[in-house]
Amino acid sequence: MSAAEADAPPSHPRPADRLLIPFRTGPTPGSRTFDLTPGLARLDGVLYGGTGAAASVLAMEAATQRDALWVVTQFIAPAQVGEAIDVAVDELALGGRIAQLQVRAHVGDRMVFTALGATAHPRPGGLTGQYLPMPSVSPPDDSGPLPFGPRSMVDAEVEAGRRLEYRAATFVGEAPPGALALWARLHGIDELTRAGVAYLADMVPPAVARAAGRLGGGFSLDNALRFADLPPADWVLLDLRGELATNGYGHGSLTAWTPDGTLVATGSQTASMVHLFASDDPRWRQEI
Amino acid sequence: MSAAEADAPPSHPRPADRLLIPFRTGPTPGSRTFDLTPGLARLDGVLYGGTGAAASVLAMEAATQRDALWVVTQFIAPAQVGEAIDVAVDELALGGRIAQLQVRAHVGDRMVFTALGATAHPRPGGLTGQYLPMPSVSPPDDSGPLPFGPRSMVDAEVEAGRRLEYRAATFVGEAPPGALALWARLHGIDELTRAGVAYLADMVPPAVARAAGRLGGGFSLDNALRFADLPPADWVLLDLRGELATNGYGHGSLTAWTPDGTLVATGSQTASMVHLFASDDPRWRQEI
Repeated sequence: MSAAEADAPPSHPRPADRLLIPFRTGPTPGSRTFDLTPGLARLDGVLYGGTGAAASVLAMEAATQRDALWVVTQFIAPAQVGEAIDVAVDELALGGRIAQLQVRAHVGDRMVFTALGATAHPRPGGLTGQYLPMPSVSPPDDSGPLPFGPRSMVDAEVEAGRRLEYRAATFVGEAPPGALALWARLHGIDELTRAGVAYLADMVPPAVARAAGRLGGGFSLDNALRFADLPPADWVLLDLRGELATNGYGHGSLTAWTPDGTLVATGSQTASMVHLFASDDPRWRQEI
Repeated sequence: MSAAEADAPPSHPRPADRLLIPFRTGPTPGSRTFDLTPGLARLDGVLYGGTGAAASVLAMEAATQRDALWVVTQFIAPAQVGEAIDVAVDELALGGRIAQLQVRAHVGDRMVFTALGATAHPRPGGLTGQYLPMPSVSPPDDSGPLPFGPRSMVDAEVEAGRRLEYRAATFVGEAPPGALALWARLHGIDELTRAGVAYLADMVPPAVARAAGRLGGGFSLDNALRFADLPPADWVLLDLRGELATNGYGHGSLTAWTPDGTLVATGSQTASMVHLFASDDPRWRQEI
C-alpha cells in the first residue's frame, strides 16, 4: 500500500472491480497480480484488450484512492490463459488533487501492456456539465444479438464466462456516418465502475470495419478513455464511430451513455485492421 | 542513431519538422535535445502543450523512420524558456511494420512530459478510407480573428514568433453541439507534417469552455492524436468539440481536415478547467 492509500479508508478498488479482476498482492511493493483466466481472455486464450484497459484503470485508482480522469492503455505483447500478470503503478507526479501515473504490466520480464493516465480528487465547485445529447436508439429490450463479431461474442456460454453481453441497437432515424451503437453490460456485477466501462468499451475495431462496409475487425493497439462520474446503471450504450483507415490501420472513437442519458465516458482507439471480410463471407466467424 | 534508423536513408525528421523544433544530438545514445525558445513557449514562458506533443511525434518518427499512427503525450511538469529539453525514445516492441514506443522528456532529472504511441510502415493493400464528411464551414479567407483566447493568440507579433495562426470559422447552418471550428496554420513552414498538426491541435480546452458558455480554458493534462496520410496543405481545419466536464475537469475531441476535405487526424484531450470567465468579463484576457 502506498502512502496515498494510507491517508483515508480505501474506496478503491470497488467491490465490483474486485469481482471483475481479482487482484492479489504483487511481487514488488505496491504492485498487484491477477491470473489470466478464460473469463478475462479472448476465445483463443489471449488477453482480451478490455481486461488490460480495466486493469490499468483499477490499478491507478487503487494506488491513489482517486477516480480515474483519463487512461490510455497500450497493448505491447500477448499474454496467455494461465499466466500471472503483475501490474505496477509509477507516480509520475502526485499533486494534492491530480495524480499523474504510469502502469506497467508484465508476465515475468515480458511487458504485456502499459498505460498513462491521471486520477483526481474533485475540485469543489469545478465545472461540471454535459455538452452532447444522447443518441436516439432502440432500448436494450428491443435490441437484438450482434449481427457481427467473433464467435466469442455469439457463444452464450463463453459470453457468460467473460461477463460480457452486447446487443445491437438501432438508431432512430438516419444513423450518423460510420456509427455502430451497442448496448453492453457485465454479467453478475451490479455496480457500474470506470473499470467496468473500460472492460466493455474495447469495441472500436468492428466499428471501423462496419464503417468500411466490411465485417470483422482488427487488433487494438491502444484504448484511450476519459471518464465522468457514473450514476447507478446496468446497461451502457456504446456509440462507436469508425472514422478513418490509412494503409491498414484504423482509427475510431466512442461515447458511452447510461440509459438515463448521462455521458459517462468518451474514448478512442487505433487498430491494425487485419481481420476483414466481405459481408457475405462465412469465413470471418472462424477467423478470430 | 538506432538500428532502425540505419536501415534506410532517413526520411524523418522532415525539413518542416527541423524548422519547427530544431533538435540536436542529446546526452544519451539516440536521444535528442531542443532549447525551449520563446517561439515554442506560451506567453508566460512555460512550455506550450503543442510543442510537447509535436516533439513526441517527431522523436518517435525519427527513431523508427516510420510515420506516426497514434501518440498520446502526458504533460507532467512545466519547463521554462531557456531550459534544454532532452527527449529519449524507448522501443517497447519493434515489429517489422509496427513500432510501439515511449518518449520521456526531461530537463535534467525533472520529467517534463512523456508519451506512448506507435509508428508503422504501410501495410500494402491495407484498408484505407475516410468515413466522416468534412464539416461545412467558412473558408479561411472569410474567417475572422479568434473571438476568445489568451493574449498570446491575439498579439500578432508574438503569434509570428510562435509560428501559430488561428482564424475562427463559422459553421454553415446550425453548429453541432459543443463545436468550435478553427482554421490553423504554421507561419514560415510550407509542408504540413504530423508533428505540425500536433503543434497546432492543442486547442480542446477552449472548446470545453465555449461548450459550457464560458470564455477561457484550462491546462491540458494530455493530448492524444491519431494520424492519416497528409496531402500537401497550408491551412488545417480543427473541428473541436467540448464534450463534458466533471468536478472541474473537461474532456473534448477534435477532427483535423485539410481544405480539400481530407480527414488528416483525430484527437482528444483532458484538461483542468481552471481559467473560466463569463463572456462579458474583461479579466480573462489578462489571466493567462
